[in-house]
Amino acid sequence: MSKDKKLVSEITSMDVDFAQWYTDVVKKAELVDYSGVKGCMIIRPYGYAIWENIQKGLDARFKELGHENVYMPLFIPESLLQKEKDHVEGFAPECAWVTVGGQNQLSERLCVRPTSETLFCDHFKNIIHSYRDLPKLYNQWVNVVRWEKTTRPFLRTSEFLWQEGHTMHETEKEAREETVRMLEVYRDFYANTLAIPAITGQKTEKEKFAGAEETYTIEPMMHNGVALQGGTTHYFGDGFAKAFDITYTDRENKIQYPHQTSWGISTRVIGAIIMTHGDDNGLILPPKIAPIQVVIIPVAQHKEGVLEKALEIKQRLSSKFRVKLDDSDNSAGWKYSEYEMKGVPLRLEIGPRDIENNSCVLVSRVNREKTFVSLDNLESEIENSLNAVHNALYERAARNLESKTYSAKNLDDFLDIAENKPGYIKALWCGDAMCEDMIKDKTGGVKSRCIPFDAPEIKEGDVCVCCGKKAKHLVVWGRQY
Amino acid sequence: MSKDKKLVSEITSMDVDFAQWYTDVVKKAELVDYSGVKGCMIIRPYGYAIWENIQKGLDARFKELGHENVYMPLFIPESLLQKEKDHVEGFAPECAWVTVGGQNQLSERLCVRPTSETLFCDHFKNIIHSYRDLPKLYNQWVNVVRWEKTTRPFLRTSEFLWQEGHTMHETEKEAREETVRMLEVYRDFYANTLAIPAITGQKTEKEKFAGAEETYTIEPMMHNGVALQGGTTHYFGDGFAKAFDITYTDRENKIQYPHQTSWGISTRVIGAIIMTHGDDNGLILPPKIAPIQVVIIPVAQHKEGVLEKALEIKQRLSSKFRVKLDDSDNSAGWKYSEYEMKGVPLRLEIGPRDIENNSCVLVSRVNREKTFVSLDNLESEIENSLNAVHNALYERAARNLESKTYSAKNLDDFLDIAENKPGYIKALWCGDAMCEDMIKDKTGGVKSRCIPFDAPEIKEGDVCVCCGKKAKHLVVWGRQY
Repeated sequence: MSKDKKLVSEITSMDVDFAQWYTDVVKKAELVDYSGVKGCMIIRPYGYAIWENIQKGLDARFKELGHENVYMPLFIPESLLQKEKDHVEGFAPECAWVTVGGQNQLSERLCVRPTSETLFCDHFKNIIHSYRDLPKLYNQWVNVVRWEKTTRPFLRTSEFLWQEGHTMHETEKEAREETVRMLEVYRDFYANTLAIPAITGQKTEKEKFAGAEETYTIEPMMHNGVALQGGTTHYFGDGFAKAFDITYTDRENKIQYPHQTSWGISTRVIGAIIMTHGDDNGLILPPKIAPIQVVIIPVAQHKEGVLEKALEIKQRLSSKFRVKLDDSDNSAGWKYSEYEMKGVPLRLEIGPRDIENNSCVLVSRVNREKTFVSLDNLESEIENSLNAVHNALYERAARNLESKTYSAKNLDDFLDIAENKPGYIKALWCGDAMCEDMIKDKTGGVKSRCIPFDAPEIKEGDVCVCCGKKAKHLVVWGRQY
Repeated sequence: MSKDKKLVSEITSMDVDFAQWYTDVVKKAELVDYSGVKGCMIIRPYGYAIWENIQKGLDARFKELGHENVYMPLFIPESLLQKEKDHVEGFAPECAWVTVGGQNQLSERLCVRPTSETLFCDHFKNIIHSYRDLPKLYNQWVNVVRWEKTTRPFLRTSEFLWQEGHTMHETEKEAREETVRMLEVYRDFYANTLAIPAITGQKTEKEKFAGAEETYTIEPMMHNGVALQGGTTHYFGDGFAKAFDITYTDRENKIQYPHQTSWGISTRVIGAIIMTHGDDNGLILPPKIAPIQVVIIPVAQHKEGVLEKALEIKQRLSSKFRVKLDDSDNSAGWKYSEYEMKGVPLRLEIGPRDIENNSCVLVSRVNREKTFVSLDNLESEIENSLNAVHNALYERAARNLESKTYSAKNLDDFLDIAENKPGYIKALWCGDAMCEDMIKDKTGGVKSRCIPFDAPEIKEGDVCVCCGKKAKHLVVWGRQY
């Protein structure tokens, strides 16, 4: 079907079928196409432009903190993957294996990287010798592969794009600080760039990364109350360093193992944007990463002077904003729907009457509110309107997160909420994985999201919501993508 | 060995052993490290920063011409790869195959992409229907894998990074123009960003890309007279479109096949930079892509005011140039060698005497010429010096290309030059692949580089240098990396 025949009315309503709504949006907004390769997606220009803006924003933050980009090989020899026991156990079941290279059977299978701790360690061993070589603050932007049975664009695909930071430090303290610092970078990016509020905290023992001592996570809540693990940071201690025999000479001339972290955010983040901000008219993009921030739609464009004025405005705005002028011969109404579907934060309408009045109309994607503004101070009006879109998105998502977060004092409460109220459940927990398993079983999938950073202290008499024994932590629970 | 014990004197001289010099430079300048994965390299921060600058420069040029970035899957199902006969014949021998996913043997093998024509075609089939959908001007920045027996960092590795442009057009004319246009983008980038002059032209039938109707190439000459295929663009006609059944309705409402191109430049370009510009002191980087354009070395830095002034200069220059201040406690002499090895185009020395005189010293990496400049107009002095480095590099490389390009009128001449004078040989050719084969055999590896765009017309009586039959083209011949 060619572009100009597509109908927005074909989208399923979010309330009728959220999963189908999601699938409709990613297709109709032309973010992805399905490929002939099972479980792999094609990221189309509009979707990839979002990813490029995300990369640009995060990469600048990483570099400001002293991180450097590198590139490690795509393949991990099986023997290398096996060096850290917990790590290989976690990842081996979802590896894709290259067994033939050129015309020959390989003597050792190669795993297509699911993550690159082992490769970084193999390299760190060569380049870390003295405390002067530390810290190493590395990052890479790459594709990774995890063989998935059921897949959904952005949320779970056999191949995805991400960044993986890998750092090595002199001391445990410094490494732990890095783990928390990078989670804060993610939180800040979600909040201030993507307009997505989230809960942050520490994963329980059961939910942490394979091989890590501690995992921290950012857990935004989607519009339907389901959690999405939005990014994680891991503290490894010296476990990998020992397994890979990475040592350095410290300031007192003693041989030591360095302390390690890793952290990553993937193209899943685009799924989070869609499911946090979207509505029944399609995508809504936070202005800071929108490939088109302002779309200019000429009204009555056949009338003299309209297209010229629209083009003039486009050129005027282009140095400050990402602007598109749609002067195609589709109807204005069709264009309105099209760019609403694509989530463009701001629409600028300009017609003969506006030109007479030296003004134009700005329409917000969030609430469709129209503002008549003078062309004299157009830049500042647009700047304000884009900020208003960002804030409105953030506040709406924050209200969603707040209103769908419940507290449960006992198991009956918990099960009732889990069954009837989609969202997060705050409940005390004894620290035992058996209780996590039981909760997951009884609810058909509710898991611990994290022990939130802002959890209140455990008081005398606080008990586990599941087993009734002494509580150790407040945990946020929820279903997940 | 830790950083501060490394000795520049360990580099082999170019004239003694060019291959060993190359290996020394890529290691000592910390561009790459060898990995435990056969044939795959680790690109270290300094090497990757060069690649990032190359990407930024090329990507901006592509986008300016209307190209959009996308992302296609890493894997190609075997049946998809086989759809275009010539293409699969060319690539199948060097594919890496995934045969196991998760815990299961796959029912169909997946090739790790060596190039992505087949994936793009599979997608184009879904999205091209009308002439309104054309042209499609796509590009992607990705890793690809070609199983190589003998590998060298940047020049030939089993995995490498590149961009691959893939475009579809209404007419043959437009597609042919794109093929030539993108080669010109490459030529211009080599000349004006990398300071590398090169011969450009068309590949012979025998040397063209698997599945292409025509291949164009840019062939810079390395310092030792050996060619490096620096980038290629391909015109496919409608061969793939027919194999993949991609059609569109044209302006007269008739069903047509679109016309296709592809074009790519890879991390090999870093090999070209090293081998074109480097010398016995190490790397020399063209200023426009150098991660550090100016390194500031404080002289007698223990003296009062020196470090403060050096830092002040660094901060002053940082908004305009990529600047590093090395205030480590290594000796000034050690630092000079270190940044010469790393190819930093310009060194700025500042000591107590300079500060008294409100001046500093600029030292060019190309010729070590020292210039005393006033701090008052430092920015413009640096700008001029960087331009001078760019021009000096370009001119030196152009002289090398010119002085090592020979003409051969007959086979004896040709064989004599091929044996004794490393470089390019211009010689007439009948158009028969048998003569190419014979020349390659007799010379132990000299192949046709291209039919250059600026070749003079064939005249009456011109004959093939090999068989003596009527000549069809002037061809540039040479050995290659």
